[in-house]
Amino acid sequence: MTPERIQSLLETYRDGLLEDTLPFWIRHAVDRRHGGFITSLDHDGTVIDTDKGLWQQGRFTWLLGELYNQVEPRQQWLDLAIAGADFIEKHGFDPSDGRMWFHVTRDGGPIRKRRYAFSESFAAIAFGELFKATGRSRYADLARQLFGRFIDHNLDPKNTPQKFTDTRPTRALGFPMITIATAQELRDSIGLPDAQTWIDRSIETIRRYHLKPDLKCVMETVGGDGAILDHFDGRTLTPGHAIEGAWFILWEGKLRGDEELVHLGCQMLDWSWQRGWDSEHGGILYFVDLRGLPVQEYWHDMKFWWPQNETIIATLLAYQLTGDAKYATWHQQIHDWAYAHFPDQQHGEWFGYLHRDGSISSRLKGNLWKGPFHLPRMQLTCWRILNEMRVG
Amino acid sequence: MTPERIQSLLETYRDGLLEDTLPFWIRHAVDRRHGGFITSLDHDGTVIDTDKGLWQQGRFTWLLGELYNQVEPRQQWLDLAIAGADFIEKHGFDPSDGRMWFHVTRDGGPIRKRRYAFSESFAAIAFGELFKATGRSRYADLARQLFGRFIDHNLDPKNTPQKFTDTRPTRALGFPMITIATAQELRDSIGLPDAQTWIDRSIETIRRYHLKPDLKCVMETVGGDGAILDHFDGRTLTPGHAIEGAWFILWEGKLRGDEELVHLGCQMLDWSWQRGWDSEHGGILYFVDLRGLPVQEYWHDMKFWWPQNETIIATLLAYQLTGDAKYATWHQQIHDWAYAHFPDQQHGEWFGYLHRDGSISSRLKGNLWKGPFHLPRMQLTCWRILNEMRVG
Repeated sequence: MTPERIQSLLETYRDGLLEDTLPFWIRHAVDRRHGGFITSLDHDGTVIDTDKGLWQQGRFTWLLGELYNQVEPRQQWLDLAIAGADFIEKHGFDPSDGRMWFHVTRDGGPIRKRRYAFSESFAAIAFGELFKATGRSRYADLARQLFGRFIDHNLDPKNTPQKFTDTRPTRALGFPMITIATAQELRDSIGLPDAQTWIDRSIETIRRYHLKPDLKCVMETVGGDGAILDHFDGRTLTPGHAIEGAWFILWEGKLRGDEELVHLGCQMLDWSWQRGWDSEHGGILYFVDLRGLPVQEYWHDMKFWWPQNETIIATLLAYQLTGDAKYATWHQQIHDWAYAHFPDQQHGEWFGYLHRDGSISSRLKGNLWKGPFHLPRMQLTCWRILNEMRVG
Repeated sequence: MTPERIQSLLETYRDGLLEDTLPFWIRHAVDRRHGGFITSLDHDGTVIDTDKGLWQQGRFTWLLGELYNQVEPRQQWLDLAIAGADFIEKHGFDPSDGRMWFHVTRDGGPIRKRRYAFSESFAAIAFGELFKATGRSRYADLARQLFGRFIDHNLDPKNTPQKFTDTRPTRALGFPMITIATAQELRDSIGLPDAQTWIDRSIETIRRYHLKPDLKCVMETVGGDGAILDHFDGRTLTPGHAIEGAWFILWEGKLRGDEELVHLGCQMLDWSWQRGWDSEHGGILYFVDLRGLPVQEYWHDMKFWWPQNETIIATLLAYQLTGDAKYATWHQQIHDWAYAHFPDQQHGEWFGYLHRDGSISSRLKGNLWKGPFHLPRMQLTCWRILNEMRVG
């Protein structure tokens, strides 16, 4: 990459974050009446569903705290982060079992809890940033406690009805992957003592059970012992997810200066790019089948925003860490395709849901799944990487 | 419709059923080793997942029995129906609570039970046809018992973890709609004594809670008292589903000679056609928003096979019952669009999942949701209607 390209990309990400993404969400998603954030927004920012998702409460709170801690200590960011944390503390928990809700009404009435505990992991990193920003020990306690509950619930989901019987036990990539990212965040924000242990353990889980060198792929779901399950669910790969996991591991390799981890992350990226990049239309496909058979999920060939975000980070980071020109080429391919199709030129931010050919399927800007997270995290992370590349 | 058009359509449906759809499923889906049916098939009929869905076990068994009883008493159809019923009896039930599974392994190991009881409703009509075909009272007992369990579970789902809290109670169109169709089938096959009562009660439920004359629409989901819930789920309309319900009511009107029911069914069809017909590309959209806002479900603008099947039946039946030329025009529109895009010219049967523009999204012929049901039921029902129109 030329210095000019680095500078131009840096400005695209930095200015996109500070002048487009963040203002869009601050302007439209902040609930001044009941606190917290409403992320179900039409293309122009109009609220189209007042319900609140706990994932997005945690994620936006984390983002605001992260920006305060990493970019500059703007009071507005901190105030909004504290308001997000207040809403989570007040309305995020089911007093009957201490678990977090997934979906509540505008004023915090509970609607739905899920079998999984990702509300907990996102709230943990949010509280962690607030500890770092304010020094209040309560935030660190909450962060630590929620990380523990996230781990405990995933390892042993007590009192939670399971979707499947025990006939065919499975393990999913999501838990070890999110554990890595959550522990990385909490190591940085609250100095989580056993962060390294959880990161090592999760990387080992991914390596042992989900990586299949003979098939050149990262399995999203495997049997309890890592066996390939030759059924729809078992064969379904989610390349964008595996690529997200790849850059969490690349990041760890970068921090530790560990060549082996960098190699592992690159391998996951390489295999998943080969399987997920749509050579016909461009962009990363949502799902593909291990053996090229039809996928059962209806939206398998759509282009969602977040797999593109994660691939933009992963390819740039792989290039920074290896200098391999292949990654610069891939980064340009995915960056150019994403920026040609996702940004809303009229109202700002990105569309979330495109057809395979890049045409818009839905003009939604947000819902309980799409909020201020993957796009701004990409913008922030790539800005930081490019800044290092520039001065390096 | 001219006599020539009637004759030509009749042959399309009849020959499609007997020479294409049915042979495809009998050739590829029958499990000679473990009994029952494997419906997860690639475009050429290759089995791509050996798991079995209880919906499809019941539906294929019903279809075979219905053909035996309505078309001609072919021994092969009866033998296969009995094999389907055997598999359901042996492997369909959880002995711990008597409820039916949704998803089992090839040899009947339980994988998943759902919160709903539609496995029960489809098994009920299957056993009903087998009673009619064989006169064995055990089949009638099973049919009656399963209808009871279907009703009881829907009205009071004991021991079943609910997806949502009680904060915002909802009622869904599916239960009253499927109750009508199930009771109609069981009235015919086993002379279910309270069929008429359940049909009347279900039509009244739909009329009172789901029909909104001021908005000209049939709501898929409403509040417990029928209120519009101005959230994603509450605003999401499923026109193909409402049209399916419309023809169940038209059918009841036809059987009873009840003009008011015919009027009701036509109203549901008219409103749902206006909202669901894709005037840009043709075909019935999967989901649309009550107020034209973005829909949250990712596949909202895809064209699935079954909404087209149900609309082909509904428009033809509405034409037969009213003589209104509008319905003949709509029937031709939906028939022509569906037949131009869904049939697989190479391997037979229909594709299930097209993009909005009619291009193929997945070459899947079947899975736990798509099996020998909507298409052959359409072919059989339209053949019967056209036969009446021809001789009438």
